[in-house]
Amino acid sequence: MRASVLRDGRMVYREDVPDPVPGPGQVLVAVRSCGICGSDLHFAAHGDQVLTMSAQAAGGSGGGIEVDLARDVFMGHEFSAEILEAGPDTETHPAGTLVTSLPVLLSAKGAEPIVYSNSTLGGYSERMLLSAPLLMPIPNGLDHTHAALTEPLAVGLHAVNKSNIERGETALVIGCGPIGIAIIAMLRARGVESIAAADFSPKRRELATAMGAHQVLDPAQGSPFDSVKARVVFEAVGVPGIIDDVLRRARPGTRLVVAGVCMEADAVHPFFAIAKEINVQFVLAYTFEEFAESLRSLAEGDIDAAPMITGEVGLDGVGAAFDDLADPERHCKILVTP
Amino acid sequence: MRASVLRDGRMVYREDVPDPVPGPGQVLVAVRSCGICGSDLHFAAHGDQVLTMSAQAAGGSGGGIEVDLARDVFMGHEFSAEILEAGPDTETHPAGTLVTSLPVLLSAKGAEPIVYSNSTLGGYSERMLLSAPLLMPIPNGLDHTHAALTEPLAVGLHAVNKSNIERGETALVIGCGPIGIAIIAMLRARGVESIAAADFSPKRRELATAMGAHQVLDPAQGSPFDSVKARVVFEAVGVPGIIDDVLRRARPGTRLVVAGVCMEADAVHPFFAIAKEINVQFVLAYTFEEFAESLRSLAEGDIDAAPMITGEVGLDGVGAAFDDLADPERHCKILVTP
Ligand SMILES: [Zn+2]
Ligand SMILES: [Zn+2]
Repeated sequence: MRASVLRDGRMVYREDVPDPVPGPGQVLVAVRSCGICGSDLHFAAHGDQVLTMSAQAAGGSGGGIEVDLARDVFMGHEFSAEILEAGPDTETHPAGTLVTSLPVLLSAKGAEPIVYSNSTLGGYSERMLLSAPLLMPIPNGLDHTHAALTEPLAVGLHAVNKSNIERGETALVIGCGPIGIAIIAMLRARGVESIAAADFSPKRRELATAMGAHQVLDPAQGSPFDSVKARVVFEAVGVPGIIDDVLRRARPGTRLVVAGVCMEADAVHPFFAIAKEINVQFVLAYTFEEFAESLRSLAEGDIDAAPMITGEVGLDGVGAAFDDLADPERHCKILVTP
Repeated sequence: MRASVLRDGRMVYREDVPDPVPGPGQVLVAVRSCGICGSDLHFAAHGDQVLTMSAQAAGGSGGGIEVDLARDVFMGHEFSAEILEAGPDTETHPAGTLVTSLPVLLSAKGAEPIVYSNSTLGGYSERMLLSAPLLMPIPNGLDHTHAALTEPLAVGLHAVNKSNIERGETALVIGCGPIGIAIIAMLRARGVESIAAADFSPKRRELATAMGAHQVLDPAQGSPFDSVKARVVFEAVGVPGIIDDVLRRARPGTRLVVAGVCMEADAVHPFFAIAKEINVQFVLAYTFEEFAESLRSLAEGDIDAAPMITGEVGLDGVGAAFDDLADPERHCKILVTP
């Protein structure tokens, strides 16, 4: 079958990938849509760094990601799919049901994240395996392209939940890439009444407004902190220097949620944070419930994901799409529709 | 009158300081004990850096500390004192009452911290001014030397409160200088059942045990994180590198409270914190209620501060005491008793 795989830092189109066979508790699905994630771009360019850092974060416990970069790597964790057939002794929804799922594959060996793997297929494939207990049918006739945004929006929802923001508090979202946009959408769905968003890109600021920001700011015109008195700040850029700038400029008592994934060493001045008693909550991923709530928000129309989808490619277009995503003026989320 | 003042980076003994005159709402007191704080040592050595950083932390709002380092600087914010006389139209406790107070002087101009000043006297003086509304009489015949520890213990209490620690959670305190010791004492007073403390100094580890730590660790023998499964970590060292080491080694979901004051730039790896969803709460000072509770804990015998007091000097011995405090094998808290 067809798939796009990571090989030597580039996405390569293959037509010779063996079809996966569902085991007990597993379900074979046909991928309908799979979003390209910024973390996939980063892994393609800096996979060795990601593996080293993950191993270090896991301590000596060996809980890091086990991937051999010298071999083809399957990726794609933001997908919607159609059920084809269940594995042995496995009860699930009827064939043809549209579903999404947490990107986790359960097997006798345990739970394996569907993210980077030499063996477990991801969403950049014609077909893949999912876990029957984790499947969520897509309700209300929600389009499979929109359903593929369940995962990135769950990331935003998790960040919002971890911030403990109340509706009357002002939020400032720094960075309007896919993570920042997901946070904005979820803040708006939550009913937060004052959402400011900052990005250098005019297109991204436009998208932020479309997705619910009440105010957008261009950092080139001056620090967002000069005009926004935010109580809760979301860092959704993930490059060195941003956190320290927040610590330096934010108001006393600020709650900073770090959702941007910075892999490099970053210089900060603890004194700024101490002098203002800043709380920094680092966040990752989401819970099962948050994933389900994200799907519900899409299906019930609380969030219209249409403006986020800026491109659609086939499996043979994934490589070019990875290149295109570098330009913030053109793209937020590109979907792969096999 | 007599006082010890900071001049050109050294504490200098003076006998010619004019007596302060209490204004309305103010009270003239005779200092009985004043603890030497690590922040005073740091200010003496790096006053220019503290002023620069404070101005930056305050943003453009001009809220930094205004001190001219070319002139004598008064310090001393951990004091107990005896009431001598009230200012005009000021009701207060009778002369002779032993009191302590938040180190803040109220006047028609507003509230000024008693910390570093060219004009407002601190506790390294024979006499000083305090604010009638902030005075707390020392109850239960608590000794004035112990009462002088109200302030540093309030710092520890504030850090403990900000951690939201529950009695069943394990705490790890990194650094057993005065701040770390205050945190340990307050964790113990709170009833936390598992308190581990780490310091390179055998003397400090001994003191940590005396003040309530259930387990002490020497980081030279291996990382404390190898043997302690802490849920809440208190950073009470304040030098570059400690925060990153915690982010790297701590367990997922760790709550890190940063109480050590690091003035320099510090390199951290946000990815470690993200991968483990660590929360970092930076803390400073305490509330009025925490100050009062700290005094109550001392007066009611919940905390015996005696082991913390490792030296006592007169006003003419402050300079030598500043030098002595560099040695962690000799001292925790030196009191100045004018
Ligand atoms: Zn993603
Ligand atoms: Zn102090």
